Amino acid sequence: MMNVSIAILGATGYAGGELIRLIEGHPHFTIGHLAAHSQAGRKVSDVLPGIGGSAAEMKLANADAALPDNVQLVFTALPHGAAAQRVKNMLDIGKKVVDLSADFRHRHAETYRSAYGLDHPCPELLEEAVFGLTEFFRTNISRTRLVANPGCYPTSALLPLAPLLKAGMLDTGRVIVDSKSGASGAGRGAKTELLYCEMNEGVYAYGLPRHRHAWEMEEWAEYFSGRAVSVQFVPHVLPMTRGMLTTLHLSGQQPERWHAILEQTFKDEPFVRILAEGLLPSTKAVNGSNCCDIGLCVTGTNTAVVVSCLDNLIKGAAGQAVQNANLMFGWEESLGLPVSALWP
Amino acid sequence: MMNVSIAILGATGYAGGELIRLIEGHPHFTIGHLAAHSQAGRKVSDVLPGIGGSAAEMKLANADAALPDNVQLVFTALPHGAAAQRVKNMLDIGKKVVDLSADFRHRHAETYRSAYGLDHPCPELLEEAVFGLTEFFRTNISRTRLVANPGCYPTSALLPLAPLLKAGMLDTGRVIVDSKSGASGAGRGAKTELLYCEMNEGVYAYGLPRHRHAWEMEEWAEYFSGRAVSVQFVPHVLPMTRGMLTTLHLSGQQPERWHAILEQTFKDEPFVRILAEGLLPSTKAVNGSNCCDIGLCVTGTNTAVVVSCLDNLIKGAAGQAVQNANLMFGWEESLGLPVSALWP
Amino acid sequence: MMNVSIAILGATGYAGGELIRLIEGHPHFTIGHLAAHSQAGRKVSDVLPGIGGSAAEMKLANADAALPDNVQLVFTALPHGAAAQRVKNMLDIGKKVVDLSADFRHRHAETYRSAYGLDHPCPELLEEAVFGLTEFFRTNISRTRLVANPGCYPTSALLPLAPLLKAGMLDTGRVIVDSKSGASGAGRGAKTELLYCEMNEGVYAYGLPRHRHAWEMEEWAEYFSGRAVSVQFVPHVLPMTRGMLTTLHLSGQQPERWHAILEQTFKDEPFVRILAEGLLPSTKAVNGSNCCDIGLCVTGTNTAVVVSCLDNLIKGAAGQAVQNANLMFGWEESLGLPVSALWP
Amino acid sequence: MMNVSIAILGATGYAGGELIRLIEGHPHFTIGHLAAHSQAGRKVSDVLPGIGGSAAEMKLANADAALPDNVQLVFTALPHGAAAQRVKNMLDIGKKVVDLSADFRHRHAETYRSAYGLDHPCPELLEEAVFGLTEFFRTNISRTRLVANPGCYPTSALLPLAPLLKAGMLDTGRVIVDSKSGASGAGRGAKTELLYCEMNEGVYAYGLPRHRHAWEMEEWAEYFSGRAVSVQFVPHVLPMTRGMLTTLHLSGQQPERWHAILEQTFKDEPFVRILAEGLLPSTKAVNGSNCCDIGLCVTGTNTAVVVSCLDNLIKGAAGQAVQNANLMFGWEESLGLPVSALWP
Repeated sequence: MMNVSIAILGATGYAGGELIRLIEGHPHFTIGHLAAHSQAGRKVSDVLPGIGGSAAEMKLANADAALPDNVQLVFTALPHGAAAQRVKNMLDIGKKVVDLSADFRHRHAETYRSAYGLDHPCPELLEEAVFGLTEFFRTNISRTRLVANPGCYPTSALLPLAPLLKAGMLDTGRVIVDSKSGASGAGRGAKTELLYCEMNEGVYAYGLPRHRHAWEMEEWAEYFSGRAVSVQFVPHVLPMTRGMLTTLHLSGQQPERWHAILEQTFKDEPFVRILAEGLLPSTKAVNGSNCCDIGLCVTGTNTAVVVSCLDNLIKGAAGQAVQNANLMFGWEESLGLPVSALWP
Repeated sequence: MMNVSIAILGATGYAGGELIRLIEGHPHFTIGHLAAHSQAGRKVSDVLPGIGGSAAEMKLANADAALPDNVQLVFTALPHGAAAQRVKNMLDIGKKVVDLSADFRHRHAETYRSAYGLDHPCPELLEEAVFGLTEFFRTNISRTRLVANPGCYPTSALLPLAPLLKAGMLDTGRVIVDSKSGASGAGRGAKTELLYCEMNEGVYAYGLPRHRHAWEMEEWAEYFSGRAVSVQFVPHVLPMTRGMLTTLHLSGQQPERWHAILEQTFKDEPFVRILAEGLLPSTKAVNGSNCCDIGLCVTGTNTAVVVSCLDNLIKGAAGQAVQNANLMFGWEESLGLPVSALWP
Repeated sequence: MMNVSIAILGATGYAGGELIRLIEGHPHFTIGHLAAHSQAGRKVSDVLPGIGGSAAEMKLANADAALPDNVQLVFTALPHGAAAQRVKNMLDIGKKVVDLSADFRHRHAETYRSAYGLDHPCPELLEEAVFGLTEFFRTNISRTRLVANPGCYPTSALLPLAPLLKAGMLDTGRVIVDSKSGASGAGRGAKTELLYCEMNEGVYAYGLPRHRHAWEMEEWAEYFSGRAVSVQFVPHVLPMTRGMLTTLHLSGQQPERWHAILEQTFKDEPFVRILAEGLLPSTKAVNGSNCCDIGLCVTGTNTAVVVSCLDNLIKGAAGQAVQNANLMFGWEESLGLPVSALWP
Repeated sequence: MMNVSIAILGATGYAGGELIRLIEGHPHFTIGHLAAHSQAGRKVSDVLPGIGGSAAEMKLANADAALPDNVQLVFTALPHGAAAQRVKNMLDIGKKVVDLSADFRHRHAETYRSAYGLDHPCPELLEEAVFGLTEFFRTNISRTRLVANPGCYPTSALLPLAPLLKAGMLDTGRVIVDSKSGASGAGRGAKTELLYCEMNEGVYAYGLPRHRHAWEMEEWAEYFSGRAVSVQFVPHVLPMTRGMLTTLHLSGQQPERWHAILEQTFKDEPFVRILAEGLLPSTKAVNGSNCCDIGLCVTGTNTAVVVSCLDNLIKGAAGQAVQNANLMFGWEESLGLPVSALWP
């Protein structure tokens, strides 16, 4: 079965558009259905001017339009809260789902309530959902019908943290995560504060005292370490479209051994690259690719700084979603995913 | 013969790097040799940080290192003047060549001398070389061993001009070409005026009274029209990395018919898209793709404005080079070339 | 009378904010009243985060709130159509007005109707209003109670065109004006197409077949030349916040004499700088200043390219408004206006 | 004495250019001499295109040209190591000096050696030099003949840290300073890695394991706290020209009291603004001004995040230098310094 029809719900946001582009270039997936609440009835290229080829000519369906029977997999790129019920519907009619919202990322309904201020709409699915941090949950991803694609910030933080936490190297009392994101992470809403002139040539922090992704980081950090972890997370928005850089200010034991742990963990990974010790990555080297670059520098007897970079719309969203989808169909996980950046 | 080894001479400029990325993702071409004068001995990813996969690990050879025997095609991305002799050498040892320099773009050695102030190093090859404006010279490209890849500005101007000139619609006494280019067109030299802080938030015109590409435009405009053409060309540099927009201020007969002529000419082209009449393109919709988008608006009884957009490093350089190379091997010309932009 | 209280109606758009900043640094003007339709009741710095000092603490009044009696001058930065009646009210209660809208820029009500699709609300004031292109209408400006501040595009085009038209040097049958503007020219409305991610790294033309400013340019070009002028105007938006560059593709007689005409015209001007012949200006050298830089290059027997640069929010709006206001009070016109750019 | 002639040595870097602009707009300082090693003999505006007015026409002198006798104050914007001897010469001939290099910022010659790898050229002057963090050393600045203008990063970190350290509120064992700087902080050298295309749309960390400014921060943090302080400093470069944001990840006692301490400390300061608790500043609101905006958010029982923003070329360099110079002549320290940003 080398030709699988997929659907995208929420196709016209930045992550949805990136999914269309990646699927269009994928050797086995084809687009069978595209839905977008506010743009229904329009042609794809009228809403997403970068899309070319046959996808450009497709019409956008209503959010609740019926899916073609032959669609086997649905990507949901809907707002949190709204996604959960729609995901359930898709599972009920026998589709596989990769959900890009936050609705199934949490292990516990209470954490979801703390982070999002909502009772979880479908708590019974939380246990079944597999957290789609591909490099650490491959086997389960390949067996599930529901992947909860991680948030962009958590992906950038957890990829380097997971092996160090599993090895018990980190002081977990205060893990400091200082992240810098391109503006596309703020979405496509028509808000004054997102206008070109208001963002260009400026940088600011936001989301304090506790951004929603802090719960996601903390819950999975605890999963990897097996004990309580306290994450201090400060996100910033930069004047660039894509790219996310996360600076981890870490303390713990024997930091001079951490680089080897990272190298060992990721040595065969197609999309995670550990730079030589002391070198630090740039978002520019990953923009347009599905890669996450990680650098480490020991800064003291018990301290080190670890920096990770990824494209927030690819490895931080649509790319990781396709990586997971590849696994759900038993294929090579790198199918259709670029390893080189669009550089410069 | 579905696996062809290629070489790139001048692999570490912006066009060279883009060639590596495109070839790496190409189904039939593989990289057999990479040379770079000033970076010989270094690893590709140390000089081009965006390159991933196996190409990242390749070593850069000296400019005059011998090529592996199995290399069948050479892309030369060398400075004008320096390219010509190297191209001749490659032909002499039986390689096919796509030359991205200006050395073989001109029909006449005298025009080359006017534009570049040099006696042509290999005038005997000028007649043999085929001008690689793919959409208009496909048959000859598929039969030649030497393609002269067009300049970025001439590609953006000639694609819309050619059909209108062929149809005899234009006043050729004063064809006004006002172009706007991203900064990557200025190359990768370490010059103060190309620093981030000197270019950011600024725009300027340059290259007057007569930019070299004016000769290239004029010579081929005359070829298409069959009579004398006077091109007034003013290029500008904008604060963006990629993208080229060319505004043609045209006068002539029956401009209300021109849109149909453009549509008819390009209706089956995979990479040239004619927008609905009155709509105007944006470079953002083509960045990262091999597409050229063209819009037309009639502005008076005898006047119209035509605007074309392309990615100067892809359709304006490396992408068109691969498109031509595909033809030289008898393949589908769109192989390995993206139709969707990396958007936003 | 060296301390004059002023009001700004429409204080929270980009031009209004720039007016506040300039007035705050002005030696004789002080802010007596600030009004803003949609932001009434808020503190200035909550809406305009760049404003510091005492102005930051002022409260924004309703659009139709009564003005303090001691206010002598009103700057109106309101939408066209809405401005006219408000301007009339201000005149009726004895205030002087500098109107930054388009409502009084035209010499004839019919032209206004053609450009804006509206019957002029106060045609009786059109004759009285003085067009505020300072360098050409100083005497009248110093005597009027109503200045119509020119549009940004017309300012950039008319400053170099006026002396050449007055000297009868230009072919007026087809004056081609190709302008490039920073994004702030599109205003502060919360529209998807103005979002950072949609504008960054992209350029496009707009406003065809005939942008409103074409009428303004043409009407005043005819005033300066004394005969019919046809202007072909194509504006573009660039990925930068401020700055406007206008490229004039001109034909006419003896272009080798035009540079001297420009130099002679502007030799004593504090804010218009003619570059040495052949040199071309950059918007970067004028951003943050009230200057307009102009360069000229002869390109043929009867042709030349003239390029002008200014900051669209300063010389193109708020700065020229203050320059005119200075004259209306009999002061040195350069008071409170910067000649150096914020560079880089 | 209301008209003081000044000199700038190293006038053509970004900080030097900003000094010229500020002095040109200053009511009492006038430029008496400008020197620039590599640009001697050229006109100012040929090297610094943003400078207008009379300064634009001045000629740049050799680095070691004699100064006019009437020059009373010298700003040295020279590389570290090179500045010290030149500063000594100026003092020896009776000039006052504000040194923008790092040469006199350190309290101890050994710290200087650790940070810069050099024996201090004039250790005898270290004690006399006053650290120019204006808000904390006003009295001494007003009495000295030598001010060591602080680094941009230390200014942004120490302004909020100083009052909290003086109050003994902070855990000094691990003060984490995560800074983000615009590209102008990297200087004007013609280096490939500073090219527009290499920096645009990218962010990276650098300077690890220990950037030079970490010593400066630590030494003065210890001065303010009276005990050992360990600073972990990670700087980043962002794709913007100006602006610096520093995020302080702090722990200590009673963080709910820190905001009041900051407010109390800075309540009468013209250039330091403490935002309402929980609000976070943006660099965009200070670019072009001499202000430093500071926000604080308590994030836990013993933790808070403090964020400061300034324009690295103004409050982080030339503006603070002028602020200090004003004090050295007994004037109001805010003379000639803008409080509003060039926004947007």
